[in-house]
Amino acid sequence: MSLTRVQKAAQVAGRTMADRHTPFIHNEWYVVALSHEISRELMSRTVLGRQLVLFRKEDGSPVALDNRCGHRNFPLSRSALEGDTVVCGYHGLRYNERGECVEVPSQCNCAGISIRNYPLHQQGPVIWIWMGEPEEADIDKIPAMPMLDEGWVTSEDYMHLKASYVYLHENLLDLTHLSFLHAKTFGTPDYARAKFDTEITEDRFWLKRYVVPTRLPPVWAKPTGLEGRDAARITTSDFVSPALHIVHAEFYDIALDESERPDQRIKTAHIPTPETATSTHYFVVHGRNFALEENEVTGFMHEQLMAAFDEDVVGLEAMEELLASRSEEDDFFEISLTADAASVAMRRYLKRRAEAEAAERTSPQAAGGAKTALASA
Amino acid sequence: MSLTRVQKAAQVAGRTMADRHTPFIHNEWYVVALSHEISRELMSRTVLGRQLVLFRKEDGSPVALDNRCGHRNFPLSRSALEGDTVVCGYHGLRYNERGECVEVPSQCNCAGISIRNYPLHQQGPVIWIWMGEPEEADIDKIPAMPMLDEGWVTSEDYMHLKASYVYLHENLLDLTHLSFLHAKTFGTPDYARAKFDTEITEDRFWLKRYVVPTRLPPVWAKPTGLEGRDAARITTSDFVSPALHIVHAEFYDIALDESERPDQRIKTAHIPTPETATSTHYFVVHGRNFALEENEVTGFMHEQLMAAFDEDVVGLEAMEELLASRSEEDDFFEISLTADAASVAMRRYLKRRAEAEAAERTSPQAAGGAKTALASA
Amino acid sequence: MSLTRVQKAAQVAGRTMADRHTPFIHNEWYVVALSHEISRELMSRTVLGRQLVLFRKEDGSPVALDNRCGHRNFPLSRSALEGDTVVCGYHGLRYNERGECVEVPSQCNCAGISIRNYPLHQQGPVIWIWMGEPEEADIDKIPAMPMLDEGWVTSEDYMHLKASYVYLHENLLDLTHLSFLHAKTFGTPDYARAKFDTEITEDRFWLKRYVVPTRLPPVWAKPTGLEGRDAARITTSDFVSPALHIVHAEFYDIALDESERPDQRIKTAHIPTPETATSTHYFVVHGRNFALEENEVTGFMHEQLMAAFDEDVVGLEAMEELLASRSEEDDFFEISLTADAASVAMRRYLKRRAEAEAAERTSPQAAGGAKTALASA
Repeated sequence: MSLTRVQKAAQVAGRTMADRHTPFIHNEWYVVALSHEISRELMSRTVLGRQLVLFRKEDGSPVALDNRCGHRNFPLSRSALEGDTVVCGYHGLRYNERGECVEVPSQCNCAGISIRNYPLHQQGPVIWIWMGEPEEADIDKIPAMPMLDEGWVTSEDYMHLKASYVYLHENLLDLTHLSFLHAKTFGTPDYARAKFDTEITEDRFWLKRYVVPTRLPPVWAKPTGLEGRDAARITTSDFVSPALHIVHAEFYDIALDESERPDQRIKTAHIPTPETATSTHYFVVHGRNFALEENEVTGFMHEQLMAAFDEDVVGLEAMEELLASRSEEDDFFEISLTADAASVAMRRYLKRRAEAEAAERTSPQAAGGAKTALASA
Repeated sequence: MSLTRVQKAAQVAGRTMADRHTPFIHNEWYVVALSHEISRELMSRTVLGRQLVLFRKEDGSPVALDNRCGHRNFPLSRSALEGDTVVCGYHGLRYNERGECVEVPSQCNCAGISIRNYPLHQQGPVIWIWMGEPEEADIDKIPAMPMLDEGWVTSEDYMHLKASYVYLHENLLDLTHLSFLHAKTFGTPDYARAKFDTEITEDRFWLKRYVVPTRLPPVWAKPTGLEGRDAARITTSDFVSPALHIVHAEFYDIALDESERPDQRIKTAHIPTPETATSTHYFVVHGRNFALEENEVTGFMHEQLMAAFDEDVVGLEAMEELLASRSEEDDFFEISLTADAASVAMRRYLKRRAEAEAAERTSPQAAGGAKTALASA
Repeated sequence: MSLTRVQKAAQVAGRTMADRHTPFIHNEWYVVALSHEISRELMSRTVLGRQLVLFRKEDGSPVALDNRCGHRNFPLSRSALEGDTVVCGYHGLRYNERGECVEVPSQCNCAGISIRNYPLHQQGPVIWIWMGEPEEADIDKIPAMPMLDEGWVTSEDYMHLKASYVYLHENLLDLTHLSFLHAKTFGTPDYARAKFDTEITEDRFWLKRYVVPTRLPPVWAKPTGLEGRDAARITTSDFVSPALHIVHAEFYDIALDESERPDQRIKTAHIPTPETATSTHYFVVHGRNFALEENEVTGFMHEQLMAAFDEDVVGLEAMEELLASRSEEDDFFEISLTADAASVAMRRYLKRRAEAEAAERTSPQAAGGAKTALASA
């Protein structure tokens, strides 16, 4: 089978876009866990392909270490937490919170053993981790989560996704899928055809969609009181970092003057943390700035949203199964649409970041050059 | 361990025979499904390592397309069938029966997107597919199935076999295994030692076995009325194509003169379609030219035969498990017997076909040469 | 992440030590089964990555052959045992106990077919197998099992371990883990800190540990009557061969003079036979030289010991899971402790043996040189 002109172009374009084979980006803050997940029980979680052990110290501060003893690779998650130290379940080596071995029961010194400690930072319901070069960890670079500001009420959740985080980011930047993948939940038929604006900068990507007039699905109509009304639904998809995507939306009755409209907005943080090349920890923090006292609204929206996001999980996993089963020579190119402009730019950015990092790892001298190339790309 | 002379010869001979590592032969008609399997429900099936979506149009004609949207590889089998078009479950791209995208909801043109359509041809209870070069599809090359002629009554079935189609073909061309693998069903002890003729041409392979006199097993004795009689059982194994093997058999009372014998024959089409290198869709169409009105005979023979063929499936899967678990340097050669002459020739033919095709794919200019080599091999 | 000086040293040292990637050592006697496991039922077992079929002849002597017919690789374990011959379940080829084909039903000769036969030797409760060069099989090299001598009573058992036999050997040579991995069974807190001697020769490795005074755990205290007493527990870990490790221990009341102490010793054979690179048949033969007539002591000690050894299985499998999931570039080095001297020497020995054998297989002429290198290493 010879390729069509369109397939050949897709093949060439595909080589510039991140996909399930692209290396991880390490120099970035990722969410490692919801705050309530980390406790005084040792817990194992894999992030960027690396197994970690997570726990809280007696003072409540969270700790992340490599989940392996430096002696013979016994998993520390199967060990004992004593005070603020972890005692290996095999030969009793004891590690402090910095990953330094402070006791080897069978000898008087500690043989210079240490394992990696990873900087953490708790931000309300989530805990961020830095997996990159330790000297570059800077908590000022943790991205803001505006739904955690005063005047907002939030709920959070976790899903495990058996697909690459790249495709979850793409899913979030392209909301034309709401009319189809989410036809039974919060999509409406007019969504795919609605007018949209795209904004692309070097490292940030927005897509704003104006569905006006429309009828809101129950998840938005009930809490806003806009059931049965001709409403506006204006949504911005905002790729903040490889670790964070925020969806902002506002709703109003189009019969009302701008000055009469109540301020009813939602902001949902979609937080994809790569577990392996083909699996992702998918955290969600959802917030609204209205009906702040109504707990049943929180529960209703949370349940409705998670049902919709589960449709994304099911769909992305179906794509991953297909990609995993294909043979190498298959012509499984991706042909991009006009609505994909932001997501294509985003996937190119992820690829450039990953390749610049990989080049830096293999040849630190070349780092400066790679960074320059990135800036001018 | 040094090899014996016989092992060394087997090692050399093995390199000329198709096995579970041999590439697929594409330029051939294969059965993709039993006719009743394809309906107005979108259905996924993998053939020659390629995932297809199958459905029927409103006029009843069957359609096969690649099971993936050309945009982002979403599986079309998880999409919607609307009229004669498939609407992708992710972003709503619509494909017609030829695999052409005819609608992209988010934009006014279709971006030149198309996916592969595969020629199909329904022949009674089975549907044939052409996975090769489209311009070479020729329905006149679909092999004849004589049990579908007038004067015959048939039944059909499907089994999934977790082993290469190569070994199923070999199993069918070598019926000395009836005395052992099928000792409890339709094999008899005299089968393995019976006189046989072999006929080998460039692309077709026969083995004819004369079990005379014998006592027939119930599957043949009951319908023919030959229970307890000294009978003849004359069976021809006929490799028709990589996609079709037909077993012809006749039975008669040896006490009767040739002119007195009723014409009692069966023909069974064994139809192995490669799914992956180590799994096979195994279709069966069984027919007889006697007792045409007796439905209970159809049911009885079908049930008895499928029980016997299931013994082949179990045995071939046990061999595949063994081959899959062996390490590379193992001396797992196959030493061939006199009775294997037809199957060895057949496996060499499959290997030549596969290699000629592979050579053609990588270097179309060399195609003429490869075909010449095949003809003279 | 740049490596610390200690990590770099561990990386270099690691390259000299056997691990889960090291090839098998073939020229060695291994235990293939407990004697009671092999019967007149054909049984399949994989040893050093090779699938065997095991059975007993009519005279009771055990037989091991490759578990595959020389014709088309059908597993003989799914075949029939007739007298002292195995009849293949596919085409009826018949093999004698030496692996020679003695009948091919469809023809008059046997085509020179044979499969490998493996020398076996029954030694009380265990059956040894020789997987190496047949001409080097020498039953005088089967290691002694002193707990099978007169004046001792034994019990035996089998566990399947999903980890490399290398780490089981290491576990056995380093008993500092008793205080931690076996804290709930037969470890005591003083074990890890007890004084020890190491003895290392070219091919044998000992570690002797003096836990004096101590309180014995129930498994030793009850049968010896030393409950509640200040006792001595003196244990020797003895790597006898890649296939055998023996733990010797003696116990006495330290208040008694040497002449007054009853002779109360145990010897436990830990017998790791590699199944695959990452799985092991773990046989145990445990013996004592006291309370010989008391069957309930045998049952009590056996149950207690197997519960403790199961902790090793669980721990080693946890390490294997971790190692299997790590990516290639991970800095999963093993930093060795003083107490590891014997086990490091042992792992170096296994690696030298495996590499010398591998060199001999690929270039028999080089064999002399490799053996010389081994002797002087």
